[in-house]
Amino acid sequence: MERISIDQARAHEGQQVEIQGWLYNLRKSGKIIFPVIRDGSGLMQCVAVKSNLPEPVFEALKNLTQESSLSVTGTVRAEARAPGGYELDVTDAHVVQRVPEERPYPITPKEHGVDFLMDHRHLWLRSRRQHAAIRVRHEVIKGIRDYFDSHGFILVDTPIFTPSACEGTSTLFEVDYFEDEKVYLTQSGQLYNEANAMAFGKVYCFGPTFRAEKSKTRRHLTEFWMVEPEMAYADLEEVKRVAEELVVYLVGRVLETRQEELKVLERDTAKLANVKSPFPRMSYDEAVKALAAKGSEIRWGGDFGNTDETLLTQDFDRPVIVDRYPAEIKAFYFQPDPERPELALGVDMIAPEGYGEIIGGGQRIHDLALLEKRLDEHKLPREAFEWYLDLRRFGSVPHGGFGMGVERFVAWMCGLEHVRETIPYPRMLYRTRP
Amino acid sequence: MERISIDQARAHEGQQVEIQGWLYNLRKSGKIIFPVIRDGSGLMQCVAVKSNLPEPVFEALKNLTQESSLSVTGTVRAEARAPGGYELDVTDAHVVQRVPEERPYPITPKEHGVDFLMDHRHLWLRSRRQHAAIRVRHEVIKGIRDYFDSHGFILVDTPIFTPSACEGTSTLFEVDYFEDEKVYLTQSGQLYNEANAMAFGKVYCFGPTFRAEKSKTRRHLTEFWMVEPEMAYADLEEVKRVAEELVVYLVGRVLETRQEELKVLERDTAKLANVKSPFPRMSYDEAVKALAAKGSEIRWGGDFGNTDETLLTQDFDRPVIVDRYPAEIKAFYFQPDPERPELALGVDMIAPEGYGEIIGGGQRIHDLALLEKRLDEHKLPREAFEWYLDLRRFGSVPHGGFGMGVERFVAWMCGLEHVRETIPYPRMLYRTRP
Repeated sequence: MERISIDQARAHEGQQVEIQGWLYNLRKSGKIIFPVIRDGSGLMQCVAVKSNLPEPVFEALKNLTQESSLSVTGTVRAEARAPGGYELDVTDAHVVQRVPEERPYPITPKEHGVDFLMDHRHLWLRSRRQHAAIRVRHEVIKGIRDYFDSHGFILVDTPIFTPSACEGTSTLFEVDYFEDEKVYLTQSGQLYNEANAMAFGKVYCFGPTFRAEKSKTRRHLTEFWMVEPEMAYADLEEVKRVAEELVVYLVGRVLETRQEELKVLERDTAKLANVKSPFPRMSYDEAVKALAAKGSEIRWGGDFGNTDETLLTQDFDRPVIVDRYPAEIKAFYFQPDPERPELALGVDMIAPEGYGEIIGGGQRIHDLALLEKRLDEHKLPREAFEWYLDLRRFGSVPHGGFGMGVERFVAWMCGLEHVRETIPYPRMLYRTRP
Repeated sequence: MERISIDQARAHEGQQVEIQGWLYNLRKSGKIIFPVIRDGSGLMQCVAVKSNLPEPVFEALKNLTQESSLSVTGTVRAEARAPGGYELDVTDAHVVQRVPEERPYPITPKEHGVDFLMDHRHLWLRSRRQHAAIRVRHEVIKGIRDYFDSHGFILVDTPIFTPSACEGTSTLFEVDYFEDEKVYLTQSGQLYNEANAMAFGKVYCFGPTFRAEKSKTRRHLTEFWMVEPEMAYADLEEVKRVAEELVVYLVGRVLETRQEELKVLERDTAKLANVKSPFPRMSYDEAVKALAAKGSEIRWGGDFGNTDETLLTQDFDRPVIVDRYPAEIKAFYFQPDPERPELALGVDMIAPEGYGEIIGGGQRIHDLALLEKRLDEHKLPREAFEWYLDLRRFGSVPHGGFGMGVERFVAWMCGLEHVRETIPYPRMLYRTRP
């Protein structure tokens, strides 16, 4: 007899199979009971009829506790009303471990506070909504990799241990290396990406990233995953084109493959279905004007707050691309606009529905003298950047790229208010366990 | 006119195209010069004839320095003797940035010491061998993900910041979190993987891993990437089956897609072509006997050294699977052999040709009382493991998995002596830059 996972039921209609999982739910109706089993791939409603089963098997099932582990044997039958479309007519069952009544599974259908659930994150992940969010995350990550791998990009992992900061040192986590040496956890692979793009043409890095920000907003984690592509011989327009193409691809893929999960999450998928090319584009100047007209207090030269980002996208059904920011509020490495050097050729993509900035990037400085000047202006230690300057000495070319945070993107896909549910074990200001 | 990458030349034979890259090599022969351009996707030999080009263009090309950036326009022509099989008959060229004679590209065809090359890692990556190794790495990583994604595994990222150690604390990197809190960089996602397997059935994590080992061997990095699958309802045999299937798949894939790179690396691919199922299998007992017969000083109860691993595989043309180790030399969480409880149901896979252990794993304890006993025996702080014990309270099932380090695997594929060339920016005892 074949052992199958629940998502394979369709291919085994009418056959005798074994499934192995955990008791998700149990409904009793006299001499018939309906245990719902979960096995990680799906849910299967089983039908156990007293008269068809040995007495001890029926009794064991009837008194089974939530999340007890068991294997069930039976015949797969199509049943349109069942979750997943199939039921199992039970012919035998074997309890692997019974959760004792004295210490029942701590997460019950009643409401629990978020702190309680986060303390039990190792179990909470079994819940349907959490399960769905992590499966959407899996699909987004696979989609990102498939996109870049099929568009000529080479994966070049950038280091986690870095000797210096990419953007300021106040939000760096410090690590004791050997013999009094200090290193810092990466905030971005970009500077390394630039070196890698000169070697491979088009590259991406994709790994965990760290920010020691003492913020407690719903958009911040101290440890999060970020993908960062970088392209040689690319300008701002090319960066925008790739960012838009990637986002359209990912949204389409999630809609195509994760309908079931989005339903569990009660996501309004009509809103995601609007996310098609072209995205609205505006300059920072235009954005400031639009915001002023909507009553924002932003002045030219200021950065957008969360409220501004939401205001800016509220008239649109898809992400908004904003470019050409004041150089003053951008990092040292941005190429200036040739026509208005006070502007940086940076670009952000702001998601609709209040999900905020999901992508930030732009074109980098390729001129050695200008980059040296910027390092001085930003009082950055020249010696630590000598290797980065080398990229402008030995075959410098216009180049650019962007970074996209996985958790914010997944939060948007899932319609989740807080990024903490988009990563298996979130790390925040007051959360490092389990 | 179309801009193409060099690897697209085949599809543009006879057409006028533009390629953008860097000067890799330049051969001169009177009134004809042969600049070889690299663009990250490949090498293209160009043919520039003085009489066919404007004087300044020909002169600029003729005097171009190594690694200067340039774009070249010309007609693609099949040429069996050229690298890649195509040449470009140059009709125009434009130098983007010329590397000045006064400060030439530091990596020349002459021999450089490893320290010098590692100090220039941001440039060394442009060299053919380094380029090839990183492309093999890309393929191995993609292969790993494709294997698990297509075999019902869900990617569940485990945290980098962990509150406690998985196996001993002496090799942990400590991080200052907020307000005097300390966290540690992960050494393995396994404990979290076990929780995730109970939620998703089959899972894997894949990310950077850290070991503060003061070793300077050719197999050690302080930061390396590891993939770790974990399966619910799986025993030692299933762990071995999946490990073998994965390795056979990966070797086949690298051979199929990275012939060009393996040639650059001068890898003897006949040796890799032998890596097919079934792999030789032996118990630890048998391995100790075999080693004794070969003159090793190992005694029963000891762990294999590098020399033992090499001895053990020298009669085989593929990896060797060794299982059932003395519980004493394995971590606390291994399920004991039911027939000989002094043995742990652990398994290692040892690569041939002296590449050593590439996979370690086994079946985990699923019984609550036994796990509690082991925590006591190993003097591990009970409180920190309460969440891990929960997995044995709420639907415990037999389960197992393994970890595979990417860098050792890539070193084996590439035939590289030292793992430091298998990762873009290696981190070692005395190496944290660039």
